[in-house]
Amino acid sequence: MFNFTALYTDQYQLTMAQAYFMNGQKDNLTVFDYFFRKLPFGGGYAIFAGLDVLLEILADFRFDKNDLEFLKEKGFHPDFITYLGKFRFRGNIYSSEEGDLIFPVRPVLQVEANIIEAQLTETILLNILNFQSLVATKASRMRQVAGDRTLIDFGLRRAQGPGGYYASRAAIIGGFDATSNVAAGRDFNIPVSGTMAHSYIESFDSELAAFDHFAEVHPHDCVLLVDTYDTLNSGLPNAMKTARKMEEKGHRLRGIRLDSGDLAYLSKKSREMLDKAGFDYVRIAVSNQLDEYIIQSLIAQEAPIDIFGVGTSLVTGYPDAALDGVFKLAYSGGKPRIKLSENVTKVTLPHKKQVFRILENNGTYSGAEAVAMADETDVDIIYHPLYPSKSMFTGNRKKEILLHKVMEGGRKLTATQSLQQISAYSRSRLDLLPEEFKRFNNPHGYKVGLSEKLRDERDRLVEEYRKL
Amino acid sequence: MFNFTALYTDQYQLTMAQAYFMNGQKDNLTVFDYFFRKLPFGGGYAIFAGLDVLLEILADFRFDKNDLEFLKEKGFHPDFITYLGKFRFRGNIYSSEEGDLIFPVRPVLQVEANIIEAQLTETILLNILNFQSLVATKASRMRQVAGDRTLIDFGLRRAQGPGGYYASRAAIIGGFDATSNVAAGRDFNIPVSGTMAHSYIESFDSELAAFDHFAEVHPHDCVLLVDTYDTLNSGLPNAMKTARKMEEKGHRLRGIRLDSGDLAYLSKKSREMLDKAGFDYVRIAVSNQLDEYIIQSLIAQEAPIDIFGVGTSLVTGYPDAALDGVFKLAYSGGKPRIKLSENVTKVTLPHKKQVFRILENNGTYSGAEAVAMADETDVDIIYHPLYPSKSMFTGNRKKEILLHKVMEGGRKLTATQSLQQISAYSRSRLDLLPEEFKRFNNPHGYKVGLSEKLRDERDRLVEEYRKL
Repeated sequence: MFNFTALYTDQYQLTMAQAYFMNGQKDNLTVFDYFFRKLPFGGGYAIFAGLDVLLEILADFRFDKNDLEFLKEKGFHPDFITYLGKFRFRGNIYSSEEGDLIFPVRPVLQVEANIIEAQLTETILLNILNFQSLVATKASRMRQVAGDRTLIDFGLRRAQGPGGYYASRAAIIGGFDATSNVAAGRDFNIPVSGTMAHSYIESFDSELAAFDHFAEVHPHDCVLLVDTYDTLNSGLPNAMKTARKMEEKGHRLRGIRLDSGDLAYLSKKSREMLDKAGFDYVRIAVSNQLDEYIIQSLIAQEAPIDIFGVGTSLVTGYPDAALDGVFKLAYSGGKPRIKLSENVTKVTLPHKKQVFRILENNGTYSGAEAVAMADETDVDIIYHPLYPSKSMFTGNRKKEILLHKVMEGGRKLTATQSLQQISAYSRSRLDLLPEEFKRFNNPHGYKVGLSEKLRDERDRLVEEYRKL
Repeated sequence: MFNFTALYTDQYQLTMAQAYFMNGQKDNLTVFDYFFRKLPFGGGYAIFAGLDVLLEILADFRFDKNDLEFLKEKGFHPDFITYLGKFRFRGNIYSSEEGDLIFPVRPVLQVEANIIEAQLTETILLNILNFQSLVATKASRMRQVAGDRTLIDFGLRRAQGPGGYYASRAAIIGGFDATSNVAAGRDFNIPVSGTMAHSYIESFDSELAAFDHFAEVHPHDCVLLVDTYDTLNSGLPNAMKTARKMEEKGHRLRGIRLDSGDLAYLSKKSREMLDKAGFDYVRIAVSNQLDEYIIQSLIAQEAPIDIFGVGTSLVTGYPDAALDGVFKLAYSGGKPRIKLSENVTKVTLPHKKQVFRILENNGTYSGAEAVAMADETDVDIIYHPLYPSKSMFTGNRKKEILLHKVMEGGRKLTATQSLQQISAYSRSRLDLLPEEFKRFNNPHGYKVGLSEKLRDERDRLVEEYRKL
């Protein structure tokens, strides 16, 4: 669908890369951390998504002829252009698994590569991972409240342009069942769903004729939209007439869809009318500006809804719009590196690192993770990143290693899994997270602490830089 | 960059299209309206963007072999697949000009095409126009407050995946000067901007060495990021040392950039220090979670800022995330059509239409538009769409026709303009809109009324459908 060349980047990656190149730093080995600072939607967790898309792109990331021509016109140095002509990403990537739970502060992914490779992949990495993780997290929140009801992504028409393509992918990882987006459905092997819009009904002289014709053409997947004129007095009675005719031909109306009005009231009334007429098998689908709170409310009201179609809030990650993921230097030129800041929460963590999830004895998650130096094999005590007096003993706990090598020398080490597999993995992780981290209001705070060694290294560097 | 085939659509467009095809309705001539219901950002106007991108896509919109193969697998009818193989958009489009001001209720654009063509273009039309109009409107709000200061789009890393590509385009239409997005810069001929990130500074053992090296490699476009360690005690003094060395070589430091801390305070202090040292030509750029309100506040505080770099809020249209544009049937099978709704504001307007902007005698905008039937040449009185008692006499006013034919038989009639031309056009329109419509808080409400003929037609159809 998309042809991402290495020109899909921010200009400053190229100006920095040229500076490195001209100063003989091109082979400088670096480690960069991808992490974020704030959980989206005021929630207690986030879902990591986009990894496989990123790795596929990076495995073939290069500048094409037009790109090089353009950079030449823009005045980049001829030697640098020649270098870019041969540019490939040959680095290593250590990452959380796609679909896993991710939390602020700790590295979600690390890139280990020469400084030009790392810099030239930053933009696409953030562009792909921030957005898909945002949408997967949003989808997961809807799945939390929807139980085993069907969730369908209807968002493409309101998506942020071609961003909708990846939104549909991320929605499945977060727990959606299907999408209306045909291109994404084809390319990512997602069940594709959709039947009719109001325009279809309106284009006929009668609603019943519209229904009857549709049922003839699509007898096996017929969901009738019943709110074009008057849901309970016209749409539903007509849908039942069509359903009766379908029965006579040995078919079954699959469902009706409500797209306006009070969905709790209308779904209850519709269920009653359908059941009374013997159409207990006809499912009720609803849509219209849904989000996790409205779905939760509809279910709390015992609205007999089988299928939720969700658009804008899902595919744009409304109301957050972006995950605040960043890509920060941790190691370069044989030395650990940090960025100071007026804001202490923005000081970065130096060195190549590993992340350990602290488990309960029964294997569930304790709600804490340890960030350690890459060569540490266990962490006995974790320290709050900012408050020295806050620590937690973790020596006797089982731990799970979270960062795994997924790319080596630019070669992808992992097989592409189906989205359903990633989604099932994601749900299995969520099942291990205690409920209090999953609630919408004031979720329990997941702890991310530093090993003593990493904390000391960071503090030492802060002092060193403050003295400069 | 993107290869949009006609499979970039919602499934229901295809199921409806097959129903039309199988029922012999494929040549049914229809008119669909594109319009929206709510101005974004609580503002008093919106900017129309995305038109030229849409027309370019539609002029070559088709299913490729893989698409047809996929639809065959999905069980679409062989005759319908054969039809889709020859499918092209051959309709007419009447549209507002790109960059013009647009308002709720009234058609922004009309598609006149056979029903399958219209339906199969709905998804991409909404996907392209909703998002670009959202971002252009956001950009325009920032331009309103920024005066002639430079505005640069820095958003690609936080954009909603490939949506960022079009966000950069729309930002220019709304009044931005440049982008960091290299691919969009190349393809849309936008000035591209960017120098360095914190990682660049950190990768050197000293901040001064990092600055000096950068200035050597990029002597003509050197903007130094001064907040990596300590803005006023390290970053700025080092930047001035580099600037002095640049002067000795006959170059000039272009600017410094502040990316954290109190931007009002730091920009004032920096300006003072720079001026005192004779660097009055060095410009001050700022970034870090800016939006129109922060820019407005910084300017109100007389912060001496020359360049604003804006990311997330611009490219995602935060906090709205989506323009609620819809595509509704107005005419089909030789008859006007409407959709009723439980919600009276969602009743659509029937017939092919024209929109007139009501002007003051001096050519400025009076703050009102008339929606009329396409064959009306003037409108004497406009009626509120919902309240029969509210009307306005417009008979003696000059008017501007807003919908123009931009595509005929699938052929694009308009030449592609530069974004700078579209932006200048947009600004010339905004200049004609009185200030009270442009303020952020409770802007004056722009009136969109119906001609008597259109209102009567709508009311007649409502009655007719209610009786069915």
